[in-house]
Amino acid sequence: MRFFSDNAAAVCPEVMAALEAANRLDTAYDGDALSRSLSGRFSELFGREVVALWVATGTAANSLALAALCPPHGSIVCHRDAHVQNDECGAPEFYTHGAKLLTAEGEGAKLTPDAVEEVLAGVRADVHQVQPHALTITNATEYGLVYTPEETAALGALCRDRGLGFHVDGARFANAVARLGCDPSELTWRAGVDALSFGFVKNGGMSAEMLIFFRPELAAATLYRRKRAGHLLSKGRYLAAQVLAMLDGDVWLGNARAANDAAARLAEAAGTERLVLPVEANEVFVRVTAEEAETLRAQGFDFYDWGPGEARLVTSWDSDPAAVDALAAAIRAL
Amino acid sequence: MRFFSDNAAAVCPEVMAALEAANRLDTAYDGDALSRSLSGRFSELFGREVVALWVATGTAANSLALAALCPPHGSIVCHRDAHVQNDECGAPEFYTHGAKLLTAEGEGAKLTPDAVEEVLAGVRADVHQVQPHALTITNATEYGLVYTPEETAALGALCRDRGLGFHVDGARFANAVARLGCDPSELTWRAGVDALSFGFVKNGGMSAEMLIFFRPELAAATLYRRKRAGHLLSKGRYLAAQVLAMLDGDVWLGNARAANDAAARLAEAAGTERLVLPVEANEVFVRVTAEEAETLRAQGFDFYDWGPGEARLVTSWDSDPAAVDALAAAIRAL
Amino acid sequence: MRFFSDNAAAVCPEVMAALEAANRLDTAYDGDALSRSLSGRFSELFGREVVALWVATGTAANSLALAALCPPHGSIVCHRDAHVQNDECGAPEFYTHGAKLLTAEGEGAKLTPDAVEEVLAGVRADVHQVQPHALTITNATEYGLVYTPEETAALGALCRDRGLGFHVDGARFANAVARLGCDPSELTWRAGVDALSFGFVKNGGMSAEMLIFFRPELAAATLYRRKRAGHLLSKGRYLAAQVLAMLDGDVWLGNARAANDAAARLAEAAGTERLVLPVEANEVFVRVTAEEAETLRAQGFDFYDWGPGEARLVTSWDSDPAAVDALAAAIRAL
Amino acid sequence: MRFFSDNAAAVCPEVMAALEAANRLDTAYDGDALSRSLSGRFSELFGREVVALWVATGTAANSLALAALCPPHGSIVCHRDAHVQNDECGAPEFYTHGAKLLTAEGEGAKLTPDAVEEVLAGVRADVHQVQPHALTITNATEYGLVYTPEETAALGALCRDRGLGFHVDGARFANAVARLGCDPSELTWRAGVDALSFGFVKNGGMSAEMLIFFRPELAAATLYRRKRAGHLLSKGRYLAAQVLAMLDGDVWLGNARAANDAAARLAEAAGTERLVLPVEANEVFVRVTAEEAETLRAQGFDFYDWGPGEARLVTSWDSDPAAVDALAAAIRAL
Repeated sequence: MRFFSDNAAAVCPEVMAALEAANRLDTAYDGDALSRSLSGRFSELFGREVVALWVATGTAANSLALAALCPPHGSIVCHRDAHVQNDECGAPEFYTHGAKLLTAEGEGAKLTPDAVEEVLAGVRADVHQVQPHALTITNATEYGLVYTPEETAALGALCRDRGLGFHVDGARFANAVARLGCDPSELTWRAGVDALSFGFVKNGGMSAEMLIFFRPELAAATLYRRKRAGHLLSKGRYLAAQVLAMLDGDVWLGNARAANDAAARLAEAAGTERLVLPVEANEVFVRVTAEEAETLRAQGFDFYDWGPGEARLVTSWDSDPAAVDALAAAIRAL
Repeated sequence: MRFFSDNAAAVCPEVMAALEAANRLDTAYDGDALSRSLSGRFSELFGREVVALWVATGTAANSLALAALCPPHGSIVCHRDAHVQNDECGAPEFYTHGAKLLTAEGEGAKLTPDAVEEVLAGVRADVHQVQPHALTITNATEYGLVYTPEETAALGALCRDRGLGFHVDGARFANAVARLGCDPSELTWRAGVDALSFGFVKNGGMSAEMLIFFRPELAAATLYRRKRAGHLLSKGRYLAAQVLAMLDGDVWLGNARAANDAAARLAEAAGTERLVLPVEANEVFVRVTAEEAETLRAQGFDFYDWGPGEARLVTSWDSDPAAVDALAAAIRAL
Repeated sequence: MRFFSDNAAAVCPEVMAALEAANRLDTAYDGDALSRSLSGRFSELFGREVVALWVATGTAANSLALAALCPPHGSIVCHRDAHVQNDECGAPEFYTHGAKLLTAEGEGAKLTPDAVEEVLAGVRADVHQVQPHALTITNATEYGLVYTPEETAALGALCRDRGLGFHVDGARFANAVARLGCDPSELTWRAGVDALSFGFVKNGGMSAEMLIFFRPELAAATLYRRKRAGHLLSKGRYLAAQVLAMLDGDVWLGNARAANDAAARLAEAAGTERLVLPVEANEVFVRVTAEEAETLRAQGFDFYDWGPGEARLVTSWDSDPAAVDALAAAIRAL
Repeated sequence: MRFFSDNAAAVCPEVMAALEAANRLDTAYDGDALSRSLSGRFSELFGREVVALWVATGTAANSLALAALCPPHGSIVCHRDAHVQNDECGAPEFYTHGAKLLTAEGEGAKLTPDAVEEVLAGVRADVHQVQPHALTITNATEYGLVYTPEETAALGALCRDRGLGFHVDGARFANAVARLGCDPSELTWRAGVDALSFGFVKNGGMSAEMLIFFRPELAAATLYRRKRAGHLLSKGRYLAAQVLAMLDGDVWLGNARAANDAAARLAEAAGTERLVLPVEANEVFVRVTAEEAETLRAQGFDFYDWGPGEARLVTSWDSDPAAVDALAAAIRAL
């Protein structure tokens, strides 16, 4: 019973069907009808003209976004636990040609304007230091917390005041939207966000992630950077098809709700004593002794230890309800 | 009736079936059983221990290979018409951090040892010039010619003598093997090749290309570079599945033969007068006037003009036999 | 008797005196009074507001200029024999993070609008190819020819029409100005030039070259790039002092005239039969047999062979008149 | 009376004389006799075969060293207050093509093996994280502390055990050697150091810093990188001359001693109550109120505030003894 990562989830049936359907003659790269429809479809979703580009991974989406917002001699503020800082093998540095990540603190991998300002205050405005050009946050965060529209907008206001570009790593953006029940625009451009990595793979897709630019002019150079990075797939229609299938009928939201609901059930079972952090998306961090973790594993539950005395349980769109119930019961029984 | 690019071909049924079959729980990134089997499977195919890595595009495969063979302050010899030089938006320069491509001449985008030596002779051995570190050829070439084992080995010998790494861009490697009827090893490591971009997408795959290192030590740093470039997909099992499905039962060879055969029929129809170059793989370059091209298009044939008075016709694994026959007849009728 | 390179020339007395004079307490980096006066002084010289930055080498000046004019995913048109292409070990690629140099043809390393247009015509306007962003020429060229104001302006018009930045590598800019007797503005901003590498080292300086931006906004990012490249010397006042000493009393022009005059005397001695190219600056390319070259060397003249049957003779500000006369006589006597 | 930076110190008379003496005909770049003698001279100084290269700045020396020790996809451990981290505008990231600096803690900008191990422990050994390849320390540190031979060797042992390259930023290496009275080898290769940035500019030079490789094989690629970065000056003999003049008669040690002695006198005047850190080189950090700082400035002393309630006083080889006495008295009188 898998709770170790939503990366290991299956591909949802709508996506599989779309791949089959896309399997007809069409043009190459991103010249096909499906790919060409993406900017329009996402413009509708966000209620504003956007440019929407597929890439093969969230790492590529994040890095292309940051390269659009920060020159090689600049720096980017992020959380100390951000995926871009810790889990992408320096991809932001590769794509930006050596920009620096400046790390800020905050519980649950969540940043506040104060935390960002503290980092900015440490930078002298002279040529001996790389100057900040962008802020990137993750929503939902690496620890399963969400930024509300208000919290996002507060950071957006800071970015506007300080001349920073604003990027959201939305590997689990669907989970955040599902949780908050808000319009996607409220977590993005209405809150001052310039670019969004909109994740589909963890949420039921196979190999397509979206990079959304709310300032279309940022896309011009990115088209070249994407090609140059080897992310302009020659059969791009299969990526577009995956994403379109998840937009149709709000599959993306339904899948995210399913994952969130499963996590909520685990959270309820764990109780506030065991929970390391509130559960706001599809990740549950619980306090368990090594012995307790062993007990759970002996019952067939697969998950990551997360530092001493803690475990991470991740649900996904396809979490088996029976397995979730069984894990909830097993946690209660600890 | 599509003859403009094999990039636009459909995904073959074996691959589609494999994607469905892969849609079960499994681990993330390249830790799954399918991905972990790749090096073994390709080692069998090539008769030698190799390291085999999937990436999403041939551009990524080529660039990662070149980055493994050439430092930022080095240079890479390639043909003036090479894909790496003209059609990857500087991806080799991006991945190598600024190495220089030195271009050599040769008919049909094919290099000879003499042509390579001529380029090397133009480089002074001092720190004011970037020094050559690698040679890359394309087999089959961008103009549909193939390098025989002997021709490849002659270049391999040159590389060994001059201390150059040797890479083959095999976007259409299957077509070359199918044409020559040789063992894949004869076009690669037995001929001194260090790294091969082994193409599957044009030949019936969806989104998986392989990078094969015949010197396993070259793979160590490449694992990091692949991640850093955003080419370590989180659901890598779907890439592995595509490739494995095409290795099973030599689907890759069968598909390539089908494409080659279709091209041969067009070549026969065109006749030596019209043919710009011999047809050895799945590309046919023919001399046609603007009027003749228009005549063909009016009959529903879709293809690229290729300079004044020439057209490029590309066949693929799924070229409709009726369409091929129709085009052959139409060419004869010009 | 040295005729192999003006790089080997001595430092002129005005510069030496200025170094001594600068040896007093002052502030660090480029905050000193001398450094701060440079933009003003060069603005006077050019009759327009410019930003003037010192760096330690012409390679750094060229590369910083190109990085200001071309993004990593762009390309730069230059002559096939340009110093940036052949003699800087890929510095432009390093500083631009992998932009591509596209080489054009032209006698004597000199470009015409037609030659540039031919290169541009070979680039498709799609994301698969790096798009041209800049043109760089060398004045005086690597073969000692000069671009007149009209010739420069013709290239400048092309750049404006095609949206290209325009850089001049002026390692021997002083020699060109001295030859043409024109105002420096006519070879630069009045002709559409955006950035100039203004050479002082070959012309009597020690270790200071100037980078002049005629569009001041280009300097903003360059200030960071210069620091980042290790070219913001902590005792920058000694670089400023060298340059200011050569501006005072037009030492730069006087030195260049001396070098040009010496070359003219050699050219006269050689005669049109022997001259490979007209002599317009301080380089003389002559046809000599291996035997003749040996005869000259036996008399103590030091110079480079320049391909089979040719030799390069370079004069400098401090060419010994007696040595020049002797060489002239020796050439006549061949 | 200047105490704000040793970067603002004058050039010492031996260097000035050497520049005059070098002003004779010689060959270009680093082919001259002076430059060619450097590796031999430094091999004598260090008692081992080394490769010694001049560059124009310490930033360049540091960055070239780090690029020799760490690939683009690696990381480098340094102190949070290291010059490479804070004051070089991302030069290490530029030269290494995007390697990451991992910062460790320690009082007075000084690292211990434990502090380094703590950073290393935070890195997972998988491809999702950049792996550590090098350690860099500054001796004397940015806060004027020195690493003893034993302390350096302990870090060197750690590097050997963990497979890290070991670099010392020796912008004030002379001050450290002068303080410790040890052999330079004890602070470098005998302690496991692979590369040293040996500073001459702050200590009486004008524009030449040295990069010393204790593993000569590291120099091979660096020769190209130096050229590519624009640090192979065409009149390199003037850089070599500066350094050689400071090696002759141990001028470098004498100058450093003078600076250290001046600092010691200020430290004595300040007393342990006022001193933020022990004074072991030529930097004195003292606790002063804003009022006291004002009082000192009113008497003509120029220095930097260093955070609230602290001031940095830097002495140099040419600190005027009378000014030092005056400042010492003024501090006592506060």
